[in-house]
Amino acid sequence: MTYCVGLYLNEGLVLLSDTRTNAGVDNIAVYRKMFVFEEPGERVIAIMTAGSLSVTQTVLAKLEEAIHAPDATAETSIMQAPSILAVAEIVGNLLSSVSADITEKINRVNQSTTAAASMILAGQRRGGRPRMFHLYQEGNFIEATTDTPYLQIGEHKYGKPLLDRVISPETSLSDGQKAVLLSMDSTMRSNLSVGMPLDLVIIKTGECRVHKQVRIEADNKAFRTLSDAWSNALRTSFREMP
Amino acid sequence: MTYCVGLYLNEGLVLLSDTRTNAGVDNIAVYRKMFVFEEPGERVIAIMTAGSLSVTQTVLAKLEEAIHAPDATAETSIMQAPSILAVAEIVGNLLSSVSADITEKINRVNQSTTAAASMILAGQRRGGRPRMFHLYQEGNFIEATTDTPYLQIGEHKYGKPLLDRVISPETSLSDGQKAVLLSMDSTMRSNLSVGMPLDLVIIKTGECRVHKQVRIEADNKAFRTLSDAWSNALRTSFREMP
Repeated sequence: MTYCVGLYLNEGLVLLSDTRTNAGVDNIAVYRKMFVFEEPGERVIAIMTAGSLSVTQTVLAKLEEAIHAPDATAETSIMQAPSILAVAEIVGNLLSSVSADITEKINRVNQSTTAAASMILAGQRRGGRPRMFHLYQEGNFIEATTDTPYLQIGEHKYGKPLLDRVISPETSLSDGQKAVLLSMDSTMRSNLSVGMPLDLVIIKTGECRVHKQVRIEADNKAFRTLSDAWSNALRTSFREMP
Repeated sequence: MTYCVGLYLNEGLVLLSDTRTNAGVDNIAVYRKMFVFEEPGERVIAIMTAGSLSVTQTVLAKLEEAIHAPDATAETSIMQAPSILAVAEIVGNLLSSVSADITEKINRVNQSTTAAASMILAGQRRGGRPRMFHLYQEGNFIEATTDTPYLQIGEHKYGKPLLDRVISPETSLSDGQKAVLLSMDSTMRSNLSVGMPLDLVIIKTGECRVHKQVRIEADNKAFRTLSDAWSNALRTSFREMP
């Protein structure tokens, strides 16, 4: 499985993904699920992926290919598309066609299987505002709004109660970072198929570039401290309840 | 959907169920999912149900019928069975056969549907220890142990992170009550198909009777206060994180 979460805050976008993939519990590997495309100051796009690795890898490879194609246009290259909405359309269309192709192949062997995948796409283009989309395998998408200023893909349930309580558009980027890490921590505790290392990306409103991008390894002390502190705080709060 | 949770503590058993059933979001009703059978001082059995209402109602009706049948025996009546394990076997077998019957009926119309249901069965018989089982629709079951001293059926994910952090066999009954209510609160916030009122039952180790049984209505002030206090405590803890 996978857990990816994106926050849509006034100060910017906070994105966090895990890296665990599995084909059965006896076949576990680390694959990046966070991909950044950037022309600093002009445009920044981050894509997080969940679902069939064969689908998401193919989509990413084709996106990359289209960017570098000699005949790249605003209709084919996400680095030339006139807006983040147009980027979401390019990626959504690709996701839909790749997922249909692979499902067709799989169905020659196993009729009842679908190669499903979904994505969170976030970014900003100079002159535009930050935007964040949840792309479905069918190619359609929904956009984050200030009413529900976060999107999740993959194993979303364990980490949701915290987000519901602490995230609003006014949340600062540093609080946002804390929140996605704690939301991920709750998820990893309950679902073995979500695992370290983690990829964190922060995009500050107006900068049109990556403000921060870090990989958090399994032995990261700060993350361990945060996780323990949160467990302790929960236990203490619980004890002090009326 | 449904959320039922049972704690298996040294001091006793704490059980909480919601009451919402739905056949689509436009067809919502209140049905009890908590059933108690008691011969005070001799035996107490509590059953919580999730899944197809037609299955669980039929199972409960048949259990009731078997208790009052003139030819009731230790093999058919859960009030005569020699142990809580034997009770779990009676209920498990019934669950399996009713679920198979109803699935067969449904399949005459719709081949791909299964009438699925599951249960948590908890109780104590004089001379025995308290026991708690998770019964699957196939009729098999697993038992709660001190390693993981709780069982959940239905929408279990949202309310699990809290239980993982605060519940151990040493947890007191009053802390256990607080924990299941907060676990339910997190679930109701995220899944509309889990809803008030709630049924709470506490069985104290050794008493072989219901120690406490209450229905918590939607306008219950103490529950509202607990829920708000927990949200505030979470937000405060979050703010104070390093």
